[in-house]
Amino acid sequence: MYRVALGLCYDGSSWHGWQRQPSGKTIQDQLERALSQFLDHPTLVTCAGRTDAGVHALNQVVHFDTTAKRSTESWVRGLNALLPSSISVQWSQLVSDDFHARFSARQRTYFYVLRQDRVRSPLLHGKVGWDFRPLDVERMREAAQQLIGEHDFSSFRSSECQAKNPVRDLYTLDIHESAGFILFRFEANAFLHHMIRNLMGVLVYVGSGRMTVEEIAPLMARRDRCYAPPTYMPDGLYLSHVQYSSEYGLPELDPLLLLRQHLGPWCFAGQ
Amino acid sequence: MYRVALGLCYDGSSWHGWQRQPSGKTIQDQLERALSQFLDHPTLVTCAGRTDAGVHALNQVVHFDTTAKRSTESWVRGLNALLPSSISVQWSQLVSDDFHARFSARQRTYFYVLRQDRVRSPLLHGKVGWDFRPLDVERMREAAQQLIGEHDFSSFRSSECQAKNPVRDLYTLDIHESAGFILFRFEANAFLHHMIRNLMGVLVYVGSGRMTVEEIAPLMARRDRCYAPPTYMPDGLYLSHVQYSSEYGLPELDPLLLLRQHLGPWCFAGQ
Repeated sequence: MYRVALGLCYDGSSWHGWQRQPSGKTIQDQLERALSQFLDHPTLVTCAGRTDAGVHALNQVVHFDTTAKRSTESWVRGLNALLPSSISVQWSQLVSDDFHARFSARQRTYFYVLRQDRVRSPLLHGKVGWDFRPLDVERMREAAQQLIGEHDFSSFRSSECQAKNPVRDLYTLDIHESAGFILFRFEANAFLHHMIRNLMGVLVYVGSGRMTVEEIAPLMARRDRCYAPPTYMPDGLYLSHVQYSSEYGLPELDPLLLLRQHLGPWCFAGQ
Repeated sequence: MYRVALGLCYDGSSWHGWQRQPSGKTIQDQLERALSQFLDHPTLVTCAGRTDAGVHALNQVVHFDTTAKRSTESWVRGLNALLPSSISVQWSQLVSDDFHARFSARQRTYFYVLRQDRVRSPLLHGKVGWDFRPLDVERMREAAQQLIGEHDFSSFRSSECQAKNPVRDLYTLDIHESAGFILFRFEANAFLHHMIRNLMGVLVYVGSGRMTVEEIAPLMARRDRCYAPPTYMPDGLYLSHVQYSSEYGLPELDPLLLLRQHLGPWCFAGQ
């Protein structure tokens, strides 16, 4: 038995999220269908982060077990020939059998890409969040300072969140700006369900003047989702990097470079 | 009677091109349906450049006549509320009645965005051309020098092209590179049917070593489409700018800035 890890890129806008569903319209269903067809026997996969409907991935990591031995390039080409155009395998790697895409992950990086303009863009529909209101980036950076660190994020998690412990350590939340776009980078050991979209709701409320930076700490202290701004749209959210111990030998891909490669050669200040 | 000009942005990948069809699945059908609904009477439009199926626009210009008087912002917002998410009106302008979106146009600018990588990108599917072969940009620039200028472009036009005169003046064909993307800019008084996609076929053949720069002049001299490389995919093609006399008072929008605003903050060398 071999354990294989794959790196996936996908456009989540036409799928009902990652997780397997009877409808079959999820990324996991599509990948398992392609794998089962490629290997000629049913194959199940496990992923690093179960993305919501409409959320994209630059480098989602999955693993599965198989008796089939294929070359690294053959997994990539063979599966891509069977996957729909909105999903593709970017790399494959044979891993030791103690590797687990979800439980071995030490850190996850998500990007949120927001476009601020008076009119919506048909070409970026589903790919970026959109706000017609002017947003004060400096004020959003001050808000980010209130959110970074180890906190009980109960005020910012979905009522359907199944995690036992609502404490998470948000290592990074930085904000870059370029030509009408705002790029948010979130890094944490792990995230609660809807946590990033709820934090985006807060940031956009602060940026557009509908909430003050001073209101954030009391909101967090309430540990009650009901008082926080609405969950922000999934459109601009990208699972961009999952960190594992280097002993597993997975390819080290720079998430900002992936963003440039899959959304166009973006250039944000300082990148 | 008033004559109104509109600037349109659209993602052409889900439509059967610009031109009205019984199926109704074209950009023109969608715009005329929205306009007729907004004005409560049938309204027909004329465009600057009839884009093919799969071809996009950053700034397609159209005009129509109406007795209705609306504010500039009301045309934009009212129509966008009725248009599908893949089409939007970016600006509107009242124009004199001698303005004609097609016949008053002096110059058209198209971009072709090409992505060179070993694996396809799901996030840019339909939005950029894709080639897995390495492409020699310097050789493509030499090829461009053979194509620029006034020529009989019969070797590079579709058999369905209806233009009486196959001579066109290609003012500009420049090529920029950034992070695995290649941007081609085509400027001419007007283009023949499929001309840019056929020229892209030549450039990619030269760039990948399947044709030499020296073969271009004899190919052009044959004035026969049958000897040229195949028509390149429409995915990366954008109608980006249409030039009119400044007396009409249309908004002057920089096509490279539009590319940044609608595809991400691209940065190509020298831009």
